[in-house]
This record gives sequence, structure tokens and C-alpha cells, in this order.
Amino acid sequence: MSLIVQKFGGSSVANAERVFNVARIVTSTYDEGNDVVVVVSAQGDTTDDLIAKGNEINPNASKRERDMLLSAGEQISISLLAMAIEKLGYPVVSLLGWQAGFQTSSAHTSARIKRVVPNRIRKELDKKCIVVVAGFQGISKYDDITTLGRGGSDTSAVAIAAAMHADLCQIYTDVEGVYTADPRKVKNARKLKDISYDEMLELATLGAQVLNNRSVEMAKKYNIELEVLSSLVKAPGTIVKEKSKMEKMLISGVAKDTDVARISVIGVPDEPGFAFKIFSKLSSKNINVDIILQSIGHNGKKDISFTVAKDRAADAEKCVQDYVENVNAKDFIVNTEVAKISIVGAGMESHAGVATKMFEALYDAQINIQMIATSEIKVSVLIDKKDADRAVSAIHEKFFEQ
Amino acid sequence: MSLIVQKFGGSSVANAERVFNVARIVTSTYDEGNDVVVVVSAQGDTTDDLIAKGNEINPNASKRERDMLLSAGEQISISLLAMAIEKLGYPVVSLLGWQAGFQTSSAHTSARIKRVVPNRIRKELDKKCIVVVAGFQGISKYDDITTLGRGGSDTSAVAIAAAMHADLCQIYTDVEGVYTADPRKVKNARKLKDISYDEMLELATLGAQVLNNRSVEMAKKYNIELEVLSSLVKAPGTIVKEKSKMEKMLISGVAKDTDVARISVIGVPDEPGFAFKIFSKLSSKNINVDIILQSIGHNGKKDISFTVAKDRAADAEKCVQDYVENVNAKDFIVNTEVAKISIVGAGMESHAGVATKMFEALYDAQINIQMIATSEIKVSVLIDKKDADRAVSAIHEKFFEQ
Repeated sequence: MSLIVQKFGGSSVANAERVFNVARIVTSTYDEGNDVVVVVSAQGDTTDDLIAKGNEINPNASKRERDMLLSAGEQISISLLAMAIEKLGYPVVSLLGWQAGFQTSSAHTSARIKRVVPNRIRKELDKKCIVVVAGFQGISKYDDITTLGRGGSDTSAVAIAAAMHADLCQIYTDVEGVYTADPRKVKNARKLKDISYDEMLELATLGAQVLNNRSVEMAKKYNIELEVLSSLVKAPGTIVKEKSKMEKMLISGVAKDTDVARISVIGVPDEPGFAFKIFSKLSSKNINVDIILQSIGHNGKKDISFTVAKDRAADAEKCVQDYVENVNAKDFIVNTEVAKISIVGAGMESHAGVATKMFEALYDAQINIQMIATSEIKVSVLIDKKDADRAVSAIHEKFFEQ
Repeated sequence: MSLIVQKFGGSSVANAERVFNVARIVTSTYDEGNDVVVVVSAQGDTTDDLIAKGNEINPNASKRERDMLLSAGEQISISLLAMAIEKLGYPVVSLLGWQAGFQTSSAHTSARIKRVVPNRIRKELDKKCIVVVAGFQGISKYDDITTLGRGGSDTSAVAIAAAMHADLCQIYTDVEGVYTADPRKVKNARKLKDISYDEMLELATLGAQVLNNRSVEMAKKYNIELEVLSSLVKAPGTIVKEKSKMEKMLISGVAKDTDVARISVIGVPDEPGFAFKIFSKLSSKNINVDIILQSIGHNGKKDISFTVAKDRAADAEKCVQDYVENVNAKDFIVNTEVAKISIVGAGMESHAGVATKMFEALYDAQINIQMIATSEIKVSVLIDKKDADRAVSAIHEKFFEQ
């Protein structure tokens, strides 16, 4: 007998039919003799509906009250799923975040899980109940309801799996696993049998959007085996674990991220401290900077370019505006029509020429590269947004189809 | 400085505009230097929507899961009201039933409040916060969410008022107070300045639907002064307290109840025990019987008539069917086209002729009386449903307009 944690996202429980689909997956796992803990997100658009209701009343409401509002979403979905499981004739109990023992920091709307005390879950499992747990939410030391931020349900599932030493944590989603590229865009994209935590982390960060990043970090930390699979198609998914068996494969995937904006500051004085100033200004506003490129100084001036998430571009622009006036830089350019294309693979570090092969693919497709960034297991390039899909296909073909 | 508990029903917070209306009432009470605890129900149709969602999946879901589902309704309304109060610039915190200290029995969907431990409420009031509390819900000793059943938010408000020794408990509703008759039906209906708990209890039981019955019982027990008033019209309401100042007035109101069915069993053997049998059968099915009428025996047979709530008529019919077959009674008749009209008044017991005056009014209006029941402070008659509004007007005219 194994303990299996299964997580279902909002689209998997969007309506009554889908709720029953999930109930059947859960009960068939239970029928195989397993203890089952199910983590669910709020139904389809519930979270968005609740956000709209709140914004109508007060778009600047406190984060505490926003958490109170949003967490009602999972309360609805866990009770509906439990009702469906009851209908199928199985013993079940639904638990809110605080009932399931999710103790978090008190950083409302983006709380971090401090610990999971799964006494109640264990008690219910001992009674042979299927346990349905509200993802995304917990309780602070002040007894206030907190939420973990978008995508937090993945983290909830992994946290339970870690706290209870689960044998497997299955993340059900609307794709069948992790692919070498987006299967909706690249027709020859291949599903990976397994992938390492680090590769998965790079892919998640780079916009593959299969798994929430924090959940992969936590899985890596506690060595929880994850399986990413489809709630609609019955087929083995992709296993995420410490060591991928595919190390000999140079790269494990191609990812595209269009949620990115490039900002270039032209004519910055080529003296110490000027680059520091702008990035400290951005970080004081909690704006994360991704790729940074600095030109070689010329005539006492240099150019600095960097990328930020698209929804922070306006805030970043303000910072840069002030900066440009303060340091007497020449000008600045904001470009949101860009895309970041990345290749990821643990095998990369021991193989020369991976980046070259990528650049060659882009050259063959006549796609211009604006910026380049590399790490031990990834290479990213910034290109025109209009070329993004073509770039992914060209790179995928070069690495996987030749 | 006083401690005031204010309760707002679902229609008072049905949309953003109404939520702000409530927020203004609350904050103006706060501005007068009072500590304010606000109890709210779920928004307008939210409860019905959630019930429909649950029924779509499993109409026979466990009561525990139904409570989990339904209690999300107040969670949404308390956070929205708190957000509106924040928008007006006041310090506020919303609390769920369990956070506010509502400890209840574990009878899901109709739990009884065992005690309120208002430590958290007190702490927030000490911080000068307005406290918004979810009505209708609490927590069982098993740490499960419970609900108090429909109308339970009134009870929540009175329970807080009792536990915290509040100076006043205001029940805001969509009428301006307690009237001598339904003001939508009887044009000369008068608003009462005050009314005693006992009179209010009889009126509530009799379908006046202004205040939930359990809440009045609790207010009487703990001697909490209630005020019933409108959330939309700024005007003094009706005070409900131990002694009404209007004792000299014979009756305080006329009430109509159409949620009633009459069942008559014809030709029951006129021997001891036969009446007992049918009522013990009904009570074993938890069916409450209201008015009972038994004819004088004739040729060894008698007829027994009684009324039950309309939604229990079908269950009662089954009991009676069995009974008729068992005791060889002649037949039975179920009539749901009836109405119960009642007059209520503490002055009644010391004044003869009140019932006569009521019967005279009905006679003048040529309305036939099917059954009669009396208590110390009320007289009820059962009549044809089609005559109900006419009967209320005729009686009201007789007592209040001559």
C-alpha cells in the first residue's frame, strides 16, 4: 500500500462533469489499495470571478481581506469534489488549508508554507477516508487565512507529500506531461519520460508553465518524486526526479516566454556605480531583472539593456525615467514585443557546441538575436516576438528531429 | 461608548452598491464613538447558487460537505464588506465563524451554538477595528465547519451580543420594523415602537418572517435588547425587549402563514390511544404538528385534523396512510390550500372578547373558519388560502383602524 498525493488544477474541476472525472481518477487510485490525498484548486474561473467582485468594491483592498475572499474558491471546489466522491460511494472528507495543517508565513497573497502538520489528514486516512485538501491556502500564526499566490496548489501538494513521506506526488494538468517543446506549436514535440528537478526548474522559469517553480524547488529539497500527467487522457506522464535517465540527451526541451519586456538605457556614463544604481532602484520596487546586457564603453558612455516581466514593464519604466534624468543618460527604449527562447538540459554543461547549434538554427531561419544569456544548463536568447514560434520550431528540429 | 452588534441579511449586501450602503451605516455608528461588531449573511442569491451547484453533483451529499460548501457564502460577503469599509478609510477585520469563536454542536446544517468565545473579537475591538463576522456558521468540537440553518445569522448576532454583553443588537432587514400587519398587504399597517420577546416569538412562529425565532428566544434568555430596522430607510425601528410599553394595546399584530397544510383523518375509532398513535408516528419522523382539532365522537367514530408545515405534508401523508390502513379509519384528506391567520398580543390574556372580535371581523368579510387554536397571547384560525389577504385586512381594520 502506498500513499499517493494527487493534485488537480482549476480547469480539471471546472464543471460537474470534470469534477466526476477527477472523482473517478481518485477512487480508482483508492481501489488499487492506496491511501489517497487529493489537493484541488478553485474551479475554473472562480478565482477570477472573486477577484473581479473584490476589485469592483475596492481595488486597493488589504491583502488580508483579499486572501479571505479568494480562499472561498477552494472551499467550494473541495466540497463539490467530496460530494462527487460520496456519490460514487466512497468515504471522503474535505479539509480547508488550516484543517489540513498548512502553517504559513503571514505574507498575505504570497505566503510561504512554514510547515505542514498533517495530524488531521493522517487521522482521516486511518479511517480509510479519501482526503480532499484545499490547495493554495493556509493559516498564519495570527489565525488568519493566507494564500500562497497563483500556482500555489502545486506547492501545497508537494508540501503534503513531503510532510507525509508520500510515495508519489501526481500533478494532473491539461497536458500529458513535459515535452521537448510546446506540443500545440511544434508538431514533432516529444513527451519526456523523465526529467531532473534542475531541468524542470529551468523550464518552469522559462515559461513552460507545466509546474509551478516553488513546487519543483520543494520537491527537489525533499526528494519527492513528481509525476506530471493529464486528467483527461489516461497515459503515463513525465516523472520529475533527482537524476534524469536522459543525461546523454543534450537538451531536454525548448521553451518560449513572451511575458517579457526589454528595456535599454542609452548613453550611461561609463564609470563605476552607474549600473548598480539602476538595479538597486529596480530591486527596491521589487522588480526582478532577468537577462542583463551591457555594451562595451565607448567615448565614456555605455548602453545597458535588461529584461523584466511584462506586467512590471510600466513600473520599471518609471524607475528608468528617473534614472535617466538623474545620471544624464541619453535616452531609453522599452520594447514589449520580444520573446525569450531557451534550451534547457543537464547534459549541456559537458557538451560543447550546444549554444552554437542553437544559434545556427536561428541563423538558418534568418532570425535576429537581440540578447543572449547562458547558465550551466540553459541558453536563452531574446528575439522579436513575431519570430518566436518559428524560432522554437527551428531549434526543436535542429536538436530533436535530425 | 457602547458596544453595538449590527446584523445585515443577504439582501442588504446583494451587490456592490448595497455593500457600500451597509459600510456607511457601520462606519457612521463607529464615528459616534461605538465599538461595532457586524454580522453578515451570504450575499443575495449566493446561498441558493451554492445549493444548486451542490445538488447538480450530489443531491444526497453528506451534511458535513454541504456545510463546507455553504459556509463559503459568508466568507465572500464578510471580505467584500471589509473591503468596502477599508475603502471608506476605516480600520476593519473580517472573521469567519470559527475565528470569531462560534462553538456549535456537530449537527451539521442545523447546528446549535454552544458558546461564543469572543477573544479574537475583543482583541480586534481593542485595536479600534470594526469587526465583521460571518453569520450562520461555526465550528464543531471536531474542528469541522458547521452551519446554523436558514435564518441563523440573526442567532449569530444575538449570541455575540449575549457573549459580549453588548448594549444593543440591531437587526437590519428590508422592512422598517415590526408592523401590526404585513405593510405590503395592509395599507394602514402601523410600525410598532416596541414589542415584548413573547409577542415577537409568536409573530415569528406565525410567519411574520421579520426575525428568526431562535434569535428571539436567545435574546429573551439573555435579555438582549433587539432593534429591528431597515438598511435602506434611515428611521427608528422596533425595539424588542422584555416588557412592551404597549400592554394596553390588545394585540400587537396580525400575521399570515401560508406555509401550512391541513390533514384530516376521517372515521377514527373513538377509543383511547388512537390519537396518540398517529402523533407518535409523526413525531418519530420529526414532523412538527401545529394546530390539532378533534371532533366529538359519533357512532363510535371521530375525525382528527391537524396542520403541519407544507414541506412536510408529503411525509405526513405517508404516516397517515399507514395509520389509516392499520386502524381501519375511513379516509383522509390533505389540503395545502390553507392559510393560518393569527393575532398576537400580550394584552390579550387580560381582556376577554379578543377572539370574538377576530371572529366577528371574519364573519363580516364572509370568510369561513376551518380550525381555531388559542394560547395566552395569540389566537390562530385556519382558513382558505385564497381568503388570506382579505382576512388580514379585515382583522387589522377591526383592531387598529376603528
